[in-house]
Order: sequence, then C-alpha cells, then structure tokens
Amino acid sequence: MKIAVLGAGAMGGLFASYLCRHNDVTLVSRHEEQADLISKEGFTVLEKDGTKEIFHPHALVSTKDMEPQDLVILFVKSMANESVLAANRSLLGPDTYLCTLQNGSGHEEVLRKFVPEDHIILGTTQHNASTKARNITRHGGSGMTHFGGITGDAKRLQRFADCFTSCGLQADVSDRVQEMIWNKMFTNISANALTGALQVPLGYIVKDPYAWSLCCQLIGEAVDVAAALGMHFDREEKIREVRAVCENAPDGLTSIYADLKNGRKTEVDAITGSVVRAGEKTGVPTPGHSFLLKLIHAMEGRSRENS
Amino acid sequence: MKIAVLGAGAMGGLFASYLCRHNDVTLVSRHEEQADLISKEGFTVLEKDGTKEIFHPHALVSTKDMEPQDLVILFVKSMANESVLAANRSLLGPDTYLCTLQNGSGHEEVLRKFVPEDHIILGTTQHNASTKARNITRHGGSGMTHFGGITGDAKRLQRFADCFTSCGLQADVSDRVQEMIWNKMFTNISANALTGALQVPLGYIVKDPYAWSLCCQLIGEAVDVAAALGMHFDREEKIREVRAVCENAPDGLTSIYADLKNGRKTEVDAITGSVVRAGEKTGVPTPGHSFLLKLIHAMEGRSRENS
Repeated sequence: MKIAVLGAGAMGGLFASYLCRHNDVTLVSRHEEQADLISKEGFTVLEKDGTKEIFHPHALVSTKDMEPQDLVILFVKSMANESVLAANRSLLGPDTYLCTLQNGSGHEEVLRKFVPEDHIILGTTQHNASTKARNITRHGGSGMTHFGGITGDAKRLQRFADCFTSCGLQADVSDRVQEMIWNKMFTNISANALTGALQVPLGYIVKDPYAWSLCCQLIGEAVDVAAALGMHFDREEKIREVRAVCENAPDGLTSIYADLKNGRKTEVDAITGSVVRAGEKTGVPTPGHSFLLKLIHAMEGRSRENS
Repeated sequence: MKIAVLGAGAMGGLFASYLCRHNDVTLVSRHEEQADLISKEGFTVLEKDGTKEIFHPHALVSTKDMEPQDLVILFVKSMANESVLAANRSLLGPDTYLCTLQNGSGHEEVLRKFVPEDHIILGTTQHNASTKARNITRHGGSGMTHFGGITGDAKRLQRFADCFTSCGLQADVSDRVQEMIWNKMFTNISANALTGALQVPLGYIVKDPYAWSLCCQLIGEAVDVAAALGMHFDREEKIREVRAVCENAPDGLTSIYADLKNGRKTEVDAITGSVVRAGEKTGVPTPGHSFLLKLIHAMEGRSRENS
C-alpha cells in the first residue's frame, strides 16, 4: 500500500516506521531539517526491551508533487488537522482512505471536508511513544489498534487492519469504535483537563476534595452525553477507572499541563470541546465542560499576551 | 457607645480610629505585638491629602475579661468570622448589635449563630484603605456607609448611622441594603474571581474573548439569582459596569489573585460561594459559579500540598 503519515512526532514516526516494513510509506514533517535527518539517518525506534531498529520511510516536507495514496494517517496535533490536510490535499484521491488515531473525539467533522464519509477511518490505539530525538522515538507501550468507519459495516476496512497487523501493529475492525474512542477519553476530559487548569500532577486530582468533585462532575456529564449518542457507560465504573489512573501515576504530568505551563496551545478542543459539541448536538447540558473549555482557552491566551 | 472592632487590618484600623473620636473603642488584633504597638504608639491614618492623624483606640488580643459592647464590628477576613466571634463571645450581650461591612454577601448566616436576627447589622461602605505598617493605614477613598437589618425597619438602626456620621464616617440606613451589597458584589464575583483562577490582571478579562465570555456568564447567573431574591439588576448594565472597572484598571491585581499566587486562603466563599448558596436556596442554577468556587478552592489546596 501507498501510505502517508502526516506528522513526524513520536507516534507518527513509530507508525511510519513499522508500516514501512511492507508498504511504501512517506512520513510528512513540518520541519525541513527533520525530514533531511530522517532521509539521511532513518528513523530509530527504541523498544522497551532495550532493542532498537532503524527504519527508512521516505521523509519530506512538501507533498505537492506526490500522487494520491491508498491511506493517509493523521498524527499531527488535532488542532492542526484542517490546515495540514489542506496543505497535503494532493495525497487525497477518490480512492484514498483517511485515518485518525488521535486522542479525543469528533475529528470526523474536519475529515469529512476532505474525503467522502465512507472513506474516513476512525481508530484508537494502545500504542504510546515519546520523542527521544527528532528521528528517535521511545516505544513506551504496545497493544491493540482498533479501526472503524462512521458509516457502513466496519468489515470493509479489514484490509487496513491486516496491513497494520502484518507490520507488527496488531489491529482489528469494530463497529463500536466510537464507543472505544469515548471509553478512552474519560481520563482525558476529566482528570487530565483539570491538571491543566489547576497546574498540578495527576495525583492531586484524587487528593484534593474540590478537584475530585469537579472530576466526578465532568465524568458524569460525559456519561450523559455518551448515553444520548447511544453509548452506555457506567458512571461509577468510569469514576473508579479515572481514580485508578490518578492513583497509579500520582506524579504524572499530562500533556495539557505541560502545554499550558509552556504557553502552548492545547488539544482541549478535541477532548473537552468534543464533549461540549456532542452535548449541544444532543441537547444534553455540559456546564462543567463548557466552563472548563473556555477557562483553558483563556489560559492559552495568556502566552499570546506575553509574547 | 462601647464599640469593639474585630480585626486590626487596614479597614478595621481606620474605622476603630475614626470611631474613637466620640466612643469607647477597642480594636482586637490577632497579634500580641501589633496590639502592643498600637497601645504604645497609637494608630495612624494617612489621608489622601497628605495629612495624618494619630488615634488611640484600646488595642488588645484577648477580650475574655471585657464586658458586652453596644456594637461589635467585624473587619477580619470573612472566612474567619465564625472562629473570631466564638473567641470573642464575651463582647456579645443581649443588647449587643453585631455589624459586618465585609465584602461579599450572606455573612448573616454565620452572624445569626451569635446574636438574635434583629441585632444583626449588614452594611456596605465606600471607604477603602490599605496597610502601610502594622499601626499605619492609608485611607485611599471615602464615601457613604449604608446600614440595614435583615428584619424590620432599618430606621431603628439610625442611632448607629448617627454615631458613625458624627465621627467623620458619613452613614445612613436603608431597607435596600441587601441590594446595595449585591450591587457592589458584581465585579467581585465575575472579573475578580476570574483574575484569581486565571492568574491575570483585570484588563485581561476584557481583552481575552474566552475570559470575557465566562465573565458575562457569571454576571448573568448572579443577576438571575438576585432576581429570585427580589432584587432587580439589569444584566447589560452590570456587564457594562464590570467592563468599565476592568478597562479603568487594566493592570489592577485583585486580592483573590494575590491570595492564590501567594498560597493563601481566599474570600471566595463570601463572594462566589454566596451566589452558589443563594442559587441553591432559590432554585436558580449557577453552574459557572459552582464550578469556579470548587476550582478556586482546589487552587487554594495546592499550597497545603506544598507546605
């Protein structure tokens, strides 16, 4: 398959690397120097067991002269989806499938501006990775990758799952991929978002009674929105799961915490924002998420102020 | 009159000083050294016009051996009201009136634990003052002081207004004192509270569209709660007033900003908290205030964590 991976961060690099075992893979970076470095030295994946492997996907910045791909995978920060897809439109032909494995939900709202609805692949993956250097990624954890469509039977996407699996990225297809995406999102939209607003590590969310009360409120609102979308989660079970995440990594610093601390734009629109938008669509009130969404955007604005 | 002022900060010191012109005034401090200093050197008020005057109220820490007063005025931080009143219970006899001129609303909920309802005086004052030294206050601005009760005709409190006026603190009584208190509270519960949560100066609240949207939401909820309590404020007018406050002091740092920055407990329970409690009592939803109240309490908790 001809595959393009948009975004050469830790996850984009990891997936492009594995997939180029049996596919013609292009890794698209924003940075000329990074693309040059990967072209020259390859992309290195450091595994948890201490082994490492160097891969050689194509790496470039501009895809203007490329032809449409079989599959395009988004691994940029989700708030860049629209601009990145616009800049790489030549990769998208009538037969191209466009896939997101990004955190958060509702990315299909942007994706459907670029490909027909039945060519959108949503997914969620248990792999995680962090950047060691511009062409070196630490592969922190592995697991399943699940694919699904937003219309029709997910079975029609089996060939993409097979392609991933054959490259060492175990994958399957499911008609309940939206539910899996939301299931994965509960920690993001509750504890993680609050660590950003409060500028605290994860453990603080369960330790401080006010923070924990807000966390439970956010989980409850999201459970209600999910129910209106036809996905049934148990509020108490979700609260227990989020509590466990906080307790297991009390010193854990989330990416939204770091983004706000360092004056960067956050992915809050893809997580908290997707709950607010789904709430508006279904008529379910999300007062906590609405307030937190604006508050975090207002916090982002402070760095625009100082720069 | 025998008057005790509880709390020897800038405002307590100012009122105790002026009132001791024609009354037997005791200023109650938390700090032995401060009480000693005031006893020895008096309390100095620096006026805006450059003049200064030294006053000699009694100053002490323990009121255990004192007899009941005609009037006790609270000028501690409002979250200390209950503990301070408990510690100075000997000042409160069957004929003692208990007065608060503190920021925020709903202080009567605590006051009624100590004196009968008809002996509670609520008020609001346009005087402001800041601390120069432990026995020196800068008198920043003057204006009216309004008194009212929570039951009965406010005219019965005229003698207290006369007492204040005769000492240079112009005062009157009004049956609409709750409305005056709420009227004064709108900036506190909207822009000021947000400067705490966002850790920004006042001007940022009108400059950032997300912060301003939250600010308007908070004003709107408070207008609705006030209406349910029988006080009618115009939402758009209040928004204009709060906007003007922010625009007139864009670099202004609020006390709630400073308290959170310095890891101190804030007065949020008396401002935001009083809107939430009044909303609960009247059945008016206050989702923004409820969220912000918990968020600010969670921010206060961070210093407990680090200490």
